[in-house]
Amino acid sequence: MLTLHHLEYSQSFRILWLLEELGAYYQLKSYRRDPESNLAPDDYKALSPLGTAPVVTDGDLVLAESNAIIDYILDAYPDSALRPAPGSVDRARHLFWFHAAQGSLMSTQMVSMVLTLLETRTPWPISALLKAIFGQVRKLFVNPRLDALFGQMEKDLAEKPFFGGDNLTAADITLVYPMFAARDKGAFELGYPNIGRWFDRVESMESFRAARAKDDRERITFRF
Amino acid sequence: MLTLHHLEYSQSFRILWLLEELGAYYQLKSYRRDPESNLAPDDYKALSPLGTAPVVTDGDLVLAESNAIIDYILDAYPDSALRPAPGSVDRARHLFWFHAAQGSLMSTQMVSMVLTLLETRTPWPISALLKAIFGQVRKLFVNPRLDALFGQMEKDLAEKPFFGGDNLTAADITLVYPMFAARDKGAFELGYPNIGRWFDRVESMESFRAARAKDDRERITFRF
Repeated sequence: MLTLHHLEYSQSFRILWLLEELGAYYQLKSYRRDPESNLAPDDYKALSPLGTAPVVTDGDLVLAESNAIIDYILDAYPDSALRPAPGSVDRARHLFWFHAAQGSLMSTQMVSMVLTLLETRTPWPISALLKAIFGQVRKLFVNPRLDALFGQMEKDLAEKPFFGGDNLTAADITLVYPMFAARDKGAFELGYPNIGRWFDRVESMESFRAARAKDDRERITFRF
Repeated sequence: MLTLHHLEYSQSFRILWLLEELGAYYQLKSYRRDPESNLAPDDYKALSPLGTAPVVTDGDLVLAESNAIIDYILDAYPDSALRPAPGSVDRARHLFWFHAAQGSLMSTQMVSMVLTLLETRTPWPISALLKAIFGQVRKLFVNPRLDALFGQMEKDLAEKPFFGGDNLTAADITLVYPMFAARDKGAFELGYPNIGRWFDRVESMESFRAARAKDDRERITFRF
């Protein structure tokens, strides 16, 4: 049986939602972050070579990396609309957002997170200097990339209700982490009504509510 | 007909190699970086909403994001060993490395690149201060992640010749960019013999040589 090793406030929420959406039979093992360091506990880090969430185990198989796990799980559901079939009308759009979540969005957010942690965890006046220098990185690199992505999202979600097209797909499921993280940082407060409606749509889904209930945390993403 | 818009020293080399490996019928349009700013030229940036390489066009479709393009192209080759079928012995291993290339490896490299650019492009003594502060980020975050990834690569490549298992797969093809970038930075100079043999294996492949010939550059990756 598949076991999801779920770390609170982490990307493993995606897999929890996926399994609930599929109505899969699975075992859930939940782990808490260290209250001081906010890191995954040692027994979580020991599960996989990267020590990152999510991890699933299935017999002898130990698999890390969100999108690899999503593809692996969906292999058992070949007719699922969560992965539009090759040649179908929503295929390219689904592929773009499924891969852009990790390739473009989360990588940019990771740069932004490192800059923010450096700005906030160094003493004054170094923090002020870093803020000034990093402001340029945000202006020239981070913000244009995020603006381009959010702009394209807003446009695509004007045409069809989900990132993957007419139906919920694995693109929406993998985007749930970076999108909730972005909303938590206020990214969509100025405009983006179609993105706002996507959040409403997601938050009203039964499988999403079931995942939130099993997660049992006041928010989905890690706050820094 | 599919057109690959290939930007020199960019991730679009992956798609060039993929198309050569498939023996695909395609049109190649090559673009040079601005010699001063090193950025993509305006006509390249105008192709896709993100303005990043790679981009392919196919009739009305404009598709960005390396792994989305790879999956889209492989849809036309359903029997290709480049994407091990669901349930096959190498499937999980292929999925892990195909997705880890973007999810874990390139995102960490992007953080490292931003830190390096900041260290080298600020005047002294700020550059010295940044180097000291960023040294901690490298020690606590960047290097452990890269070490874990390269360690797992070395282990997996001891068992089977390619990242995807017994045969070349899209995992090797998408890893070509971050792996050549890492080698260019000296990441494998101390040890990693199995990774070294993977480079030899790749560099002796006919499709790889054909892609290098069409790329016609002294190296594959962007140097910063």
